[in-house]
Amino acid sequence: MLAGTLRQQIYAALPEGEEHRGAPGVAALIICTVILNTATTLLQSVPELQPFMAAHTTIPLLCGGIFVAEFFLRFWTATECDRLWQKFPLLGKRGSYLVSFHGVIDLLVCVPMLFMLAGFAPDGWLSLFAVISLFKLSRYVTALELVGAVIQNEKHTLVASVLTLGLLLVILSTCLFLVENAAQPELFKSIPHTLWWGIVTLTTIGYGDMVPVTLAGRILGGITMLIGIGMLAMPTGIIATGFANERKRRELLQIWKIVSSLPLFNHLDANWISEISGLLKTLMVPAHVVVITKGEFSTALFFIADGEVEIDLSPTPRRLRSGDFFGEAGLLQNKPRSATVTTVKPTRFLVLGLAEYQSLMSRAPDLRKKLEETASQRTLESR
Amino acid sequence: MLAGTLRQQIYAALPEGEEHRGAPGVAALIICTVILNTATTLLQSVPELQPFMAAHTTIPLLCGGIFVAEFFLRFWTATECDRLWQKFPLLGKRGSYLVSFHGVIDLLVCVPMLFMLAGFAPDGWLSLFAVISLFKLSRYVTALELVGAVIQNEKHTLVASVLTLGLLLVILSTCLFLVENAAQPELFKSIPHTLWWGIVTLTTIGYGDMVPVTLAGRILGGITMLIGIGMLAMPTGIIATGFANERKRRELLQIWKIVSSLPLFNHLDANWISEISGLLKTLMVPAHVVVITKGEFSTALFFIADGEVEIDLSPTPRRLRSGDFFGEAGLLQNKPRSATVTTVKPTRFLVLGLAEYQSLMSRAPDLRKKLEETASQRTLESR
Amino acid sequence: MLAGTLRQQIYAALPEGEEHRGAPGVAALIICTVILNTATTLLQSVPELQPFMAAHTTIPLLCGGIFVAEFFLRFWTATECDRLWQKFPLLGKRGSYLVSFHGVIDLLVCVPMLFMLAGFAPDGWLSLFAVISLFKLSRYVTALELVGAVIQNEKHTLVASVLTLGLLLVILSTCLFLVENAAQPELFKSIPHTLWWGIVTLTTIGYGDMVPVTLAGRILGGITMLIGIGMLAMPTGIIATGFANERKRRELLQIWKIVSSLPLFNHLDANWISEISGLLKTLMVPAHVVVITKGEFSTALFFIADGEVEIDLSPTPRRLRSGDFFGEAGLLQNKPRSATVTTVKPTRFLVLGLAEYQSLMSRAPDLRKKLEETASQRTLESR
Amino acid sequence: MLAGTLRQQIYAALPEGEEHRGAPGVAALIICTVILNTATTLLQSVPELQPFMAAHTTIPLLCGGIFVAEFFLRFWTATECDRLWQKFPLLGKRGSYLVSFHGVIDLLVCVPMLFMLAGFAPDGWLSLFAVISLFKLSRYVTALELVGAVIQNEKHTLVASVLTLGLLLVILSTCLFLVENAAQPELFKSIPHTLWWGIVTLTTIGYGDMVPVTLAGRILGGITMLIGIGMLAMPTGIIATGFANERKRRELLQIWKIVSSLPLFNHLDANWISEISGLLKTLMVPAHVVVITKGEFSTALFFIADGEVEIDLSPTPRRLRSGDFFGEAGLLQNKPRSATVTTVKPTRFLVLGLAEYQSLMSRAPDLRKKLEETASQRTLESR
Repeated sequence: MLAGTLRQQIYAALPEGEEHRGAPGVAALIICTVILNTATTLLQSVPELQPFMAAHTTIPLLCGGIFVAEFFLRFWTATECDRLWQKFPLLGKRGSYLVSFHGVIDLLVCVPMLFMLAGFAPDGWLSLFAVISLFKLSRYVTALELVGAVIQNEKHTLVASVLTLGLLLVILSTCLFLVENAAQPELFKSIPHTLWWGIVTLTTIGYGDMVPVTLAGRILGGITMLIGIGMLAMPTGIIATGFANERKRRELLQIWKIVSSLPLFNHLDANWISEISGLLKTLMVPAHVVVITKGEFSTALFFIADGEVEIDLSPTPRRLRSGDFFGEAGLLQNKPRSATVTTVKPTRFLVLGLAEYQSLMSRAPDLRKKLEETASQRTLESR
Repeated sequence: MLAGTLRQQIYAALPEGEEHRGAPGVAALIICTVILNTATTLLQSVPELQPFMAAHTTIPLLCGGIFVAEFFLRFWTATECDRLWQKFPLLGKRGSYLVSFHGVIDLLVCVPMLFMLAGFAPDGWLSLFAVISLFKLSRYVTALELVGAVIQNEKHTLVASVLTLGLLLVILSTCLFLVENAAQPELFKSIPHTLWWGIVTLTTIGYGDMVPVTLAGRILGGITMLIGIGMLAMPTGIIATGFANERKRRELLQIWKIVSSLPLFNHLDANWISEISGLLKTLMVPAHVVVITKGEFSTALFFIADGEVEIDLSPTPRRLRSGDFFGEAGLLQNKPRSATVTTVKPTRFLVLGLAEYQSLMSRAPDLRKKLEETASQRTLESR
Repeated sequence: MLAGTLRQQIYAALPEGEEHRGAPGVAALIICTVILNTATTLLQSVPELQPFMAAHTTIPLLCGGIFVAEFFLRFWTATECDRLWQKFPLLGKRGSYLVSFHGVIDLLVCVPMLFMLAGFAPDGWLSLFAVISLFKLSRYVTALELVGAVIQNEKHTLVASVLTLGLLLVILSTCLFLVENAAQPELFKSIPHTLWWGIVTLTTIGYGDMVPVTLAGRILGGITMLIGIGMLAMPTGIIATGFANERKRRELLQIWKIVSSLPLFNHLDANWISEISGLLKTLMVPAHVVVITKGEFSTALFFIADGEVEIDLSPTPRRLRSGDFFGEAGLLQNKPRSATVTTVKPTRFLVLGLAEYQSLMSRAPDLRKKLEETASQRTLESR
Repeated sequence: MLAGTLRQQIYAALPEGEEHRGAPGVAALIICTVILNTATTLLQSVPELQPFMAAHTTIPLLCGGIFVAEFFLRFWTATECDRLWQKFPLLGKRGSYLVSFHGVIDLLVCVPMLFMLAGFAPDGWLSLFAVISLFKLSRYVTALELVGAVIQNEKHTLVASVLTLGLLLVILSTCLFLVENAAQPELFKSIPHTLWWGIVTLTTIGYGDMVPVTLAGRILGGITMLIGIGMLAMPTGIIATGFANERKRRELLQIWKIVSSLPLFNHLDANWISEISGLLKTLMVPAHVVVITKGEFSTALFFIADGEVEIDLSPTPRRLRSGDFFGEAGLLQNKPRSATVTTVKPTRFLVLGLAEYQSLMSRAPDLRKKLEETASQRTLESR
């Protein structure tokens, strides 16, 4: 029981990205260790600094120690993590951690430590294991997850792009080899050597170490360059479309979450929440515009999707931000507005109009009863 | 009859992309042969390996034999393929195969075999025919079809881009020749020579073999580079837009196919299916959310467009995926929900609400009668 | 009168892009002349070919003659063109032609002819006037107009991008000059010289003729490269968005044109056509699917926006393509379908349902009367 | 009071971008000064021009004087500006100006003046302060604000892209160093040196000063190039999507502004304006098409979103442009059209149909009463 409690506490302290932030300082410690470790490895490779760096093994040993400790703690506390079951149910939670992306990285970065303990100097291929520790950072950069989702969604099309590139690369390089080999036998000495020219040109890098000089070679080179532009355009187009779709998907999810998080609606099924979400209209309002005026009878419920508004409550005005809502009383009790609301920034609202709300209620007497119960209960609880 | 049956069996065994996968192993055999053949050709061109490779003609002969066999089998069984009529109805099916893209490729890759049988060594221009065999792979990479469709749809705009590039190339190169010829008469010795500088710069390759050095040449070069960025942006913009449109088109088709594949609706005309498709609302639900609760009265039919849900049926829960649907009983018989459904992944549903369904039924008494007949028939057949 | 008639005939014979194709052969003659003229000019600049080319002034004189003739005919017949009034109403039609883009080009390409007639050899800067004749081709490549419209719409944002690029170019080059001047005083000898490095790097060309070698210079160079990627992304993003918007705009115009071109609707005001356009639903149908079945009562009018269908009329089936429509009788007279219609390719329809059509009619008794008149008139005329 | 009035007048004369254009000539003076100052600084750095330029300190002194004057005037009049409160309410208006982006720039460009007054020659690092004056121009290029808004909105994703680039840069460079160091110990002499190769390749610049020559190095180089294309595609995709969203947002705001600027509607709450905006239909009409015909009874209110129309009023026809509207009388009083309206360019209308308007009125008796009051009042005022 004691071990279990300690394990839970340690698990809670180890950060795991957006949804599990860990104890304060732990993430910062790991990030600093990774950066320090990588910087040391980079500087160790500079010939001028080597006599100086070789004497100082303190930093690599310290960083290695932190990585080893992190790995063992994560391995030990893996049993507390619910997320790990999903992909490899047969391996158990610790096994799942070991074969997960972050588990493999956590293990690999411990390798240089083991070699150092065995008496080897930390150089050569070991530096690769050190820089791999940079992958640990991907736990903390949350926007990377959007990038990852786009690549995941578009992987079939991206792989097809790379295969097309490979196919064109071999064919164009073979052609150029046949054309250019006689003029520059030293540079274009075989098809595999010409492949280097091909990839350098198709990706529009153009080092200039291998350049066709014959007329036929230059015409073929020009065609290769035009195809190269197309090859650049293809993944860009795929990723641009993928981003737009992923954004739209996340926006729909956001509306869904706003609606389902309202106290009034949070006991409803997905279907009713979808019905209500569908009735919402998007409304863009510039900054410094009056949205509702005190005493008016216009009736609608406003959700703030983006931006900020100010309610002129008498002692101190109150500011509402993304995710907040106002105008509930107008919708349910048809009362005059009790305060004036003004936008502070350009704001995007989701508006649920009275007409739409009432037509929904009349079509669904069950829902009406349920909502009225919830509303009266909230009044009793004097929320 | 026997020949016909054999032909049908062989036709069925030969893979033909997504819609016709062929016998197991045949696709793998062809793919391996293509890769082996290309690799051999590439290595044969390396001077150091030539004495070693020249002695070994077994692999080219083997690959060539497989290609020749494939060509003759495809040519013989072409009569079984319905798809080939469409483009060249006058040539017959075998003629259509011969002039189709894949027919030409299948024939061309047999050329080196014929030369080898005639006693020529497999080098020089013959290696081009060998690498052409890579085009055979395009039968198996199905995502390429999306790429092809985008290029096909946008071909007019892409050709206009290439023509614009050509026009600017000639004009800018002429200007640079006039400006730079005096300073570097060896490099920029004529307009056609300067065209090479132009294409290398406009496509942002920048080998560095020809670089303007005069002030006027550098100003003109800078303008050329800015135009070059525009020339890169143009096809990228075209392809990005084309991808977005093609995706949307395929999504609409997918909804259409889901609706028309429902037993309830599959006898309907395209127009009614379109009516029903138009009534569907898109609904994004995050993972691990209850979509419908057992015993509830909320009524709607859910189609899964993307993602996965779990139905908690008592002995073993059942999982539904993309293309499945649930909630049919609620829509047609207004019964309480018989099970709770929870999302496993973030899921996109297409929801057909009761209200929309009934308004459709009241507008179309014919359709109502037809659907009721279908439903009662399905009950009799105790599906 | 005679001159007027001849002028009209010559005006009609001169091609003017999409909307005015001219007499057969005239466009081909001009395109060939332009290409021949440009090719000659390019080859004349090659030193090896110059003794040979200098003797042959027949081709430049012939091409020049055709250009001069074209210019004078276009100038003379400009009075027949209605399009020219719009931009410069004060100059008259011939003056408007002279100051229009194509008028200036047509005049400029006559310059080398004048010099040759005056006895000068066709070389040096004269070759620039010759290649300018390529701009004449822009009359015939109609997809260029879409490209032009996008650039026109986005010009403010594109200019802002170029100005941003210029601003960053000067600042980054100044920084690099200060850092790198001491190490490479020959290459980075002044800020204006370093601007060349800046533009070569910001546009991702990278010739390699000027490369920073100090640590500070390389760090600054790396930052410049990252900004350069952003500079590439900016116009690409602008143009991609511009293309998507321009496409959508043209699609809306196309629906409008289809609806307003129907005999039934073509006497209506823009507002009613907009009302009807708004009632159309987009319907994607895969290839080889039955759209309507003979004898069925389902009622809707189908417009084909993209693709192809086949109507199985008894002697010979008939094919309908983009812009055609069918099902008119079902909508107006509620008769059973007289033939089965099947899609040949994946087809996008715009469908006008009976319900939508009738709700429109009931809201607008005037329109109903008008349409009934048109319909009965068409029956009398036994169209 | 006098000082206050003078201050107000000077504040009004100083230009501040789109919303505050200043006195005529002041913006032009500042822009000319910035360009003159930058050009002088650039030319001063050219070794050949230095003896000539060093003698002429008039221009730098003059420009510096204008900058110093501008800074003090802006600092003194900052109290008149309402916009400055928002970000730093604690600093007061003058403090807010000093810490704002433009305040810092305005101050920094005064530095060279101070040094010159103290007797130093205007060279070396001082030239950096001079070119910083280019940032002053960003006040006047209004399209830059759209670019800024996109970068602001997408900053999290862009930072994630740059971090991903950095991570891949370190890992790929380490690998290449390990592979290539033995073959080219002079060029690839440490990981930090190889980082230069990495950034030059990942950004597709490709100077060619460091190029791998071993087989393993070239394979790794090829992989780096493919990843580099992805790295180019990522920000392009992000910015393209961001532009599309920002455009859509601004278009919605524009509709909102058009509707709320109508005299009929400008006393309404945001909610009603949103209701009315939602009823508007977009209508694209080609050029030279009759939109409404005189004497017809079709009834709708047309707003012009883009383009131009002509009303054939009897003495002189009148042209309406973006933001104008017509057909008000038809909507409110159901009168026949009093004039024919024809499009001059392809025009995008926002149409408010009679049916939609009346259904809105019947749902909202309060609004009806209010609008009727406004309309009758306008008749009394005989607008």
